[in-house]
Amino acid sequence: MKKIQNVYDDKNFFSAYKEMRDSKLNANELIEIPIMKEMLPDLKDKKILDLGCGDGCMSRFFVEKGAKQVVGVDISQNMINEAMKYEHKNIKYFVLPMEELDKLKGKYDIVCSSLAFHYVEDFEKLMKDISNKLKNNGYLVFSQEHPVATAYIVPKDGTKHIDIDGKRYYLVSDYNNNGKRVLDWNKKGVVKYHRNFETIISDLINAGFSIQQLREARPSKEAIKLVPKYVYQNDRPYFLFIKAKKK
Amino acid sequence: MKKIQNVYDDKNFFSAYKEMRDSKLNANELIEIPIMKEMLPDLKDKKILDLGCGDGCMSRFFVEKGAKQVVGVDISQNMINEAMKYEHKNIKYFVLPMEELDKLKGKYDIVCSSLAFHYVEDFEKLMKDISNKLKNNGYLVFSQEHPVATAYIVPKDGTKHIDIDGKRYYLVSDYNNNGKRVLDWNKKGVVKYHRNFETIISDLINAGFSIQQLREARPSKEAIKLVPKYVYQNDRPYFLFIKAKKK
Repeated sequence: MKKIQNVYDDKNFFSAYKEMRDSKLNANELIEIPIMKEMLPDLKDKKILDLGCGDGCMSRFFVEKGAKQVVGVDISQNMINEAMKYEHKNIKYFVLPMEELDKLKGKYDIVCSSLAFHYVEDFEKLMKDISNKLKNNGYLVFSQEHPVATAYIVPKDGTKHIDIDGKRYYLVSDYNNNGKRVLDWNKKGVVKYHRNFETIISDLINAGFSIQQLREARPSKEAIKLVPKYVYQNDRPYFLFIKAKKK
Repeated sequence: MKKIQNVYDDKNFFSAYKEMRDSKLNANELIEIPIMKEMLPDLKDKKILDLGCGDGCMSRFFVEKGAKQVVGVDISQNMINEAMKYEHKNIKYFVLPMEELDKLKGKYDIVCSSLAFHYVEDFEKLMKDISNKLKNNGYLVFSQEHPVATAYIVPKDGTKHIDIDGKRYYLVSDYNNNGKRVLDWNKKGVVKYHRNFETIISDLINAGFSIQQLREARPSKEAIKLVPKYVYQNDRPYFLFIKAKKK
């Protein structure tokens, strides 16, 4: 079987990542999670699958809001170990890559995934697998890195943006060139996958979803006050959010 | 009443535009129209509204494919004059800005618009007006300039892209900064409106549409052979296409 990347079990990656998340001054805490929470449907008495659950912060939020049962899965044993530090009778965690969703039993009311889909190579299959795991009229709510940010292949000199007359411009290229993007993030050679909007929306629709909501990262005034560089998320948003309903 | 821009009735703009379109070697003919045609639902016996119909090339296509009745509207008298050169008993043309759709009578099976919506300031109202003009289960199919291309405000020095190691990178900034973009295109100071994906999709959904298909400009091999620079449409697509159904 094809080897699936598992950077979160790389010791150096994990400690760098954990330090970033623990600081609370990161784009997940300040931008991504608040938008995800706004997009969630009613969680009361729902059965929820948390894909790429990481340290379980969303899983815990779901039970706090009345979810009946939460299953959190993550490819990383390190991450599941973190999540297990806060055990809860209504949450079960499993070490499982998203590519092997068919190993999970049962159907869910809601599938949620925070910033994990860009690690998955086969988005079309992922959408079909998620659709199969959802009850009719169930919801998929996910965030991922934004196509306008993942598109370009970083040039050798590392240029990410240029300044003209004191104004920042980001680079975009290879937008239609879906596929692997290898970059250095907490570790050398982390693999992520770029997909254009056409592919994301088509794969959702073809898997039986209807698009309910689409949002893009927009930093709050408070976030910009805490981390001034987040103002640039308005120039080129880093996260895309979609809420879709299984028809 | 607020003055609506009508660049197509500007003499110099119109002659430059007409020369570009007549050459047939332009992105409309080679990239945009072929994708629009692929996205159209069955046209047989349908009543169709063509918004920003220009010289009527799509309106004529609709009747060729069996449309029962086509109404083409455009803000520009010049454009309607061009369209009227090829009269057809099943097509009616009117000089009318899209902002005044409520002046049209009747309901339609299909509303189509090719590269005109980026001239309209109030997209939310436009989507509601179109929804009102459509029968239930009717389709809206439109193309417009792509948010990744319209986002950035061209710097004073005119930079549109930079080259690093022989590779082209386009600029993106102000993506979340929806609104007016003034640029020189066939004429100085043409006004277009940038909107991010969040706004486009939200306004469609709030007007009662469900998203059926979303596509992005992708040049064919043939198009690149005829106009080699169109290869860059893969680096940063210039057109966005959406097919939506009135629920």
